[in-house]
Amino acid sequence: MITDHRVYKNLAQKNNNKIVLLVMDGLGGMPLHVNGLTELESAYTPNLDRLAGEGSSGRSIPIRPGITPGSGPAHLSLFSYDPIQFEIGRGVLEALGIGFDLSHEDLAARGNFATVDANGLISDRRAGRIPTEECIRLCEKLQAETSLAAEGYETFVLPVKEHRFALIIRGAGLGGQLTETDPLVTGKAPLPVTDESGTTEGAHSADLVNKWVAQARSVLADEPKANSLNLRGLARDPGLPRFPDIYQMRAAAIAVYPMYKGVAKLVGMNVIEFDGDRPHHEFEALAREWDNYDFFFIHIKKTDSYGEDGNFDAKVHEIEAVDAALPQLLALNPSVLIVTGDHSTPAKLRSHSYHPVPTLFWGEDVMPDSVATFGERAAEGGAMSVFHATEMIPWAMGYAGRLARFGA
Amino acid sequence: MITDHRVYKNLAQKNNNKIVLLVMDGLGGMPLHVNGLTELESAYTPNLDRLAGEGSSGRSIPIRPGITPGSGPAHLSLFSYDPIQFEIGRGVLEALGIGFDLSHEDLAARGNFATVDANGLISDRRAGRIPTEECIRLCEKLQAETSLAAEGYETFVLPVKEHRFALIIRGAGLGGQLTETDPLVTGKAPLPVTDESGTTEGAHSADLVNKWVAQARSVLADEPKANSLNLRGLARDPGLPRFPDIYQMRAAAIAVYPMYKGVAKLVGMNVIEFDGDRPHHEFEALAREWDNYDFFFIHIKKTDSYGEDGNFDAKVHEIEAVDAALPQLLALNPSVLIVTGDHSTPAKLRSHSYHPVPTLFWGEDVMPDSVATFGERAAEGGAMSVFHATEMIPWAMGYAGRLARFGA
Repeated sequence: MITDHRVYKNLAQKNNNKIVLLVMDGLGGMPLHVNGLTELESAYTPNLDRLAGEGSSGRSIPIRPGITPGSGPAHLSLFSYDPIQFEIGRGVLEALGIGFDLSHEDLAARGNFATVDANGLISDRRAGRIPTEECIRLCEKLQAETSLAAEGYETFVLPVKEHRFALIIRGAGLGGQLTETDPLVTGKAPLPVTDESGTTEGAHSADLVNKWVAQARSVLADEPKANSLNLRGLARDPGLPRFPDIYQMRAAAIAVYPMYKGVAKLVGMNVIEFDGDRPHHEFEALAREWDNYDFFFIHIKKTDSYGEDGNFDAKVHEIEAVDAALPQLLALNPSVLIVTGDHSTPAKLRSHSYHPVPTLFWGEDVMPDSVATFGERAAEGGAMSVFHATEMIPWAMGYAGRLARFGA
Repeated sequence: MITDHRVYKNLAQKNNNKIVLLVMDGLGGMPLHVNGLTELESAYTPNLDRLAGEGSSGRSIPIRPGITPGSGPAHLSLFSYDPIQFEIGRGVLEALGIGFDLSHEDLAARGNFATVDANGLISDRRAGRIPTEECIRLCEKLQAETSLAAEGYETFVLPVKEHRFALIIRGAGLGGQLTETDPLVTGKAPLPVTDESGTTEGAHSADLVNKWVAQARSVLADEPKANSLNLRGLARDPGLPRFPDIYQMRAAAIAVYPMYKGVAKLVGMNVIEFDGDRPHHEFEALAREWDNYDFFFIHIKKTDSYGEDGNFDAKVHEIEAVDAALPQLLALNPSVLIVTGDHSTPAKLRSHSYHPVPTLFWGEDVMPDSVATFGERAAEGGAMSVFHATEMIPWAMGYAGRLARFGA
């Protein structure tokens, strides 16, 4: 079932029980051969196995059957926001991904440096995938030599990686439904930005963006490769309902990578700063902040990265590192612990996938089911069966005694 | 989850991976005694068992919990069209069921011959269930002696079975929301057809149908039993979204019986003609057309017919015949194969039923779950759990790599 916030907002009640959502990015895997084990099944995980033995297992569907999620929508779903219902522009996700402190009024775009020929037709949509250092230099140049100050707007041009950057325009009255400049094929000229919303903000924003693009292209004209650019996914922060308001919980995010901090911020969580990037560093930050919040989202990135590299063994070892550090977390006595992934990233496929994600719920009031280990196939027989990822927080709210009875 | 086509239409992408949906009509069964085996569990099916061992199993719900489907809605659901959302008139299904080549403009009705007394009140709503030969004779008589040609319309009166026939009116400007003539009880007079849509087409169509009914009743007046008739389910082809457009797949249907060809045609599949009526004939047609399509629906009828006869053993043997012919299909190397039924038809019940239908998914990227054989009880522990039949095509799209990633 897709979660409807209105139902939970009416029932949410405060108490002292703490909920931890531990996300190993891309956790779900596949066997390399039909009779083999998955990454999670291969890993030595005595702590996770004990939790599975004492709690309830199941498998979650991040978006809809058969659909492979990007990281942004997959995390929205974990936070109980159906990504089909709550759309977020790529520009917003890109800005969040580099840790830009986006305000609700900002218009954000994903930018790609590109190469155009003498006739202005695109010959390379990625400008030969220039190195990131080049991207940094070009963004600094654009930041210095372009401006919408005359129109009353601030602009931020920020490097992402290789040919990718982010543009943020800050000021009042931005919005609309803006088209992209990228024709998506080479041999064509870039397109102007137009507004499809028919609103005053939309027309005004399209106009502003086109002005900036003209300036930027003239600044880049003499560059050998990145002599042009395209903008995609122009949008504002959609203004999602706030997680702490829906669930009546002070919520904190503990993550290493900007993207995940950003999505947590979008739904109103506080981002915890800490040193280090290993699971045990994240659990130390958790211990430090334990008394200040009711809900903690902890994000482990490398399980996904190794999956995307096709590195089965490294993914196994990262899962084992999380398991080894887990006693730190358990020593805090959470009332409810969820261990899951945002999606599957089987090393076999070297990419995100649509496969349901093994998930365990542990806590004093969680039903101990018949599952004895944590793994894809073990979870098939678990108490939670197959469920939509937006159900995760609601179940945890129930297990934590944080939902009032429905009706007399 | 009920499938929402809009989500998938945006993500569907083309590749060379082929999907086969193999439907054994009424596949699901029950044990005759509480400790017995079902038809599928009793059948010797080494090929299906191997596929179940290598793939994922589950059980599908065709309509909603507890609801027994007719063949038309059950197949719509397999094709990912929720039958609650996409209504198809009985007249359209009746016309498709007898293989009539319905056009989008045609108005179709299901007809029942009936007996009225001297006062014009219905004394038998089924005209004593006259034999089918009688039905054929009466339809020929009506075809010859009734006409809407003066109004510019063609009419087709076609026998179905016993007291049942189909009426099709062909011409421009038909439609509306038309009521039925059958009062559903004896002792009352038939009702006139009225339009509830308030449209010009509706009023015009009701008028036309009433004219034809008056002619037809006067032609039948001297018949000993079938001296009147009723019309039900007057409707046009609802103009469903086309399967090939939603999923970006060239789609073919391989079926022996007209009803299944008809439903496939309703959603825009091409119907393949071939000689013979056994499973291996259907797989030969599949091999012949393999390069011309991306998606194949193959329909096996007799599993259902034997279930309806209460012939447990014959149903077992038909399942075994499909299993024996399966290597022909597997030799074509489908990327994804689904084996399922449109609904259950337990020989014990001698009818369609609401019981979830054992279903297996097989393919390179399908998770090998813990299930080792194909059967109702084995599927209970499978990776697919219990799911709505409209999810089947979406899962297959994912397994075939035919869906783009959702979000960045």
